[in-house]
Amino acid sequence: MNVDIDSKGLQTAIDELALISEAPAPAVTRVLFGPEDLRARAWLKERAAAMGLKVREDAVGNIFMRWDGRDASAPPVATGSHTDAIPNAGRYDGVVGVLGGLEALAALQRSGFQPRRSLEVIMFTAEEPTRFGLGCLGSRLLAGALSLDRAAALRDAQGRSLDELRSVAGVHGDLASVRLGRQAYSAFVELHIEQGPLLERERLPIGVVEKIAGPSSYRVRLTGEGGHAGAVLMPERHDAGLAGAEIALAVERAAKNSGSPDTVGTTGVFRQEPNAVNSVPCAAMLEIDFRDTDHTARTAAWKKVEAAIAEICQRRGVRWELEIINSEAPAVCAPELVEAVAAVCASLSLPVKHMISRAYHDSLFMAQICPTTMIFIPCRGGVSHRPDEYSSPEEIATGASVLAHTLAKLAGSA
Amino acid sequence: MNVDIDSKGLQTAIDELALISEAPAPAVTRVLFGPEDLRARAWLKERAAAMGLKVREDAVGNIFMRWDGRDASAPPVATGSHTDAIPNAGRYDGVVGVLGGLEALAALQRSGFQPRRSLEVIMFTAEEPTRFGLGCLGSRLLAGALSLDRAAALRDAQGRSLDELRSVAGVHGDLASVRLGRQAYSAFVELHIEQGPLLERERLPIGVVEKIAGPSSYRVRLTGEGGHAGAVLMPERHDAGLAGAEIALAVERAAKNSGSPDTVGTTGVFRQEPNAVNSVPCAAMLEIDFRDTDHTARTAAWKKVEAAIAEICQRRGVRWELEIINSEAPAVCAPELVEAVAAVCASLSLPVKHMISRAYHDSLFMAQICPTTMIFIPCRGGVSHRPDEYSSPEEIATGASVLAHTLAKLAGSA
Repeated sequence: MNVDIDSKGLQTAIDELALISEAPAPAVTRVLFGPEDLRARAWLKERAAAMGLKVREDAVGNIFMRWDGRDASAPPVATGSHTDAIPNAGRYDGVVGVLGGLEALAALQRSGFQPRRSLEVIMFTAEEPTRFGLGCLGSRLLAGALSLDRAAALRDAQGRSLDELRSVAGVHGDLASVRLGRQAYSAFVELHIEQGPLLERERLPIGVVEKIAGPSSYRVRLTGEGGHAGAVLMPERHDAGLAGAEIALAVERAAKNSGSPDTVGTTGVFRQEPNAVNSVPCAAMLEIDFRDTDHTARTAAWKKVEAAIAEICQRRGVRWELEIINSEAPAVCAPELVEAVAAVCASLSLPVKHMISRAYHDSLFMAQICPTTMIFIPCRGGVSHRPDEYSSPEEIATGASVLAHTLAKLAGSA
Repeated sequence: MNVDIDSKGLQTAIDELALISEAPAPAVTRVLFGPEDLRARAWLKERAAAMGLKVREDAVGNIFMRWDGRDASAPPVATGSHTDAIPNAGRYDGVVGVLGGLEALAALQRSGFQPRRSLEVIMFTAEEPTRFGLGCLGSRLLAGALSLDRAAALRDAQGRSLDELRSVAGVHGDLASVRLGRQAYSAFVELHIEQGPLLERERLPIGVVEKIAGPSSYRVRLTGEGGHAGAVLMPERHDAGLAGAEIALAVERAAKNSGSPDTVGTTGVFRQEPNAVNSVPCAAMLEIDFRDTDHTARTAAWKKVEAAIAEICQRRGVRWELEIINSEAPAVCAPELVEAVAAVCASLSLPVKHMISRAYHDSLFMAQICPTTMIFIPCRGGVSHRPDEYSSPEEIATGASVLAHTLAKLAGSA
């Protein structure tokens, strides 16, 4: 089988899609159901149809582009990613997985390959949290990881609901129909830029993902007692800012001492009120990100943070409220898929790095309904979510080639 | 001598002045050289002139209202405070000292008293830091505690200089002429609401101030390294927010362990960048207020904070810059004035509390050029800088009466 990726054509497609953007080049902005997101969706569907793929869109706007296999009863093999982009992002995050997936199918078509299982490229709706503050909207609903109640309650910054935006975008149907069962796909493999520095640093062309760290995030609201910084003596204080400072350090300590080298804990947001130099802070708000590939270690470490919050606030006479913003289990990738990717790399004489994905992707949710893995390619300096995000045409073509061979292997020849 | 304070007239004057405000009643806002500050100044000068006082205004707008004594060569006795008000303040802070001072002089006039030394009521320019971020502008310049270079460099939020605003306000002359020598006054006594809860709590009508805590404030800028909260492992981090958290706790520790019960340290301002839940903070900024009545203890405690900043930042690989916003020595009030006020209270059968002023006032700077003390009256709940700030007409009249007797005693009878 001679699978020949059209590197130049793929790069042209990536550059063409980058021009469909709310932000001026080189920045890319495409917000869910905004005008440019809708233009990108139309462009993508047209492109897939021109390849002879069957195009279906579900009720949340996930787009499924299918090459029918010989065995219509066998669950298909899927690949895919997203094309939405946070404000002032680059052109590769997500896009490489969608257009690289289409090019992988095109290369297989050109090679004369006939798949036994159907092959599908999925463009997931709103992997980025820009609109609703919640990432992976499409894949969450698809995997049944987001309740319909919570989906109905989503509001954007202008107070618009998902239903309101769907109807403006011309995306119709019952949201309940988005959810797919565990037998919908036999496998899912997502091609993505690493968004980290490791492949570049080690000069390796391909990474295969063994685990995706499980993210969780929390909001802590602290209410103490304010007062004049000159007038309230130290023993009389209930300083909400200092309670917050201790909590931020407790988050760090718990992450460092979890026993798992992959635990990361970050107090990314810290605000205090009234935030005036001569006022004792009466209130504070922290947002904490807590992740691990090891769910047990993460849970145990977070319990220590909760205990610390209680102890700190009690000692300081500060009231607290803890809100779970989200909490996802980590994903362990399917060993047989990891092995399949590694074997493809070996057959192509490409060195491969077994990796952890510390950022999360639609794969985190696809892993809840089918065997899943990810293929990473290097990106310059590990930079992502910025206009200067970059992977070379050769690096992208190498990734698409590994993806094509892997999909062919998983779909089987008819 | 029968000194009879016109409580009703004094209250009417306070209420009348409260209506000269940028904010709607009951709130009071008068910002240096704003239209309402200028109206209040004109109102005040007219009132003083009607009492037969000689009115002089210096080059920064300090207003001196003098009742000439028999001995023109003896340095006068002064009282006074300020009439500017922070946004949405109340009607008593500062005003009680200016209008109470005028009423004290009026009551002495009515009693037939003839002073040997001249008696002066001073309205100090911009005790509040609203316009330029620096409090006590008038008294600082008067005492020579603010260099002319620094005064020339002051800019308000709109970028306007003091000279620009003086010229618009019709306040002219060389700023260098504002400074007065150590022989300008024989004594200064400021009447003020407590801005704290102690007198009310102990049901005492009068406090006499023995010390004014010396304020200092600092800005710390921290620069670490940002990154994705999922991607950067704990040992690789240089989290500027956590360095800030440790510094805030070091400020608290140093204040608590200074050995002086009056040391207070407050991290009133804490900001971190980019302040996003999934980003490691790359930068942070803290503003710290540090005060004490004991200059030696404060200096030693602050040295410990500086050492902690260096140690924390070095350990965490975070760069820091420390800026001194201001640093004033505490004031020790003149024992003979404290005693004079206490003796007046005894003669009037008023219990008196010997106190510390933890907030600072124009008295902090007047104490640098002449013997100084302050007379405090209770204010409801210790509340100040709010529209619901309140002292009763009786409480104010009692304060004005103690002030009048004290001024008479210090000026001597002709």
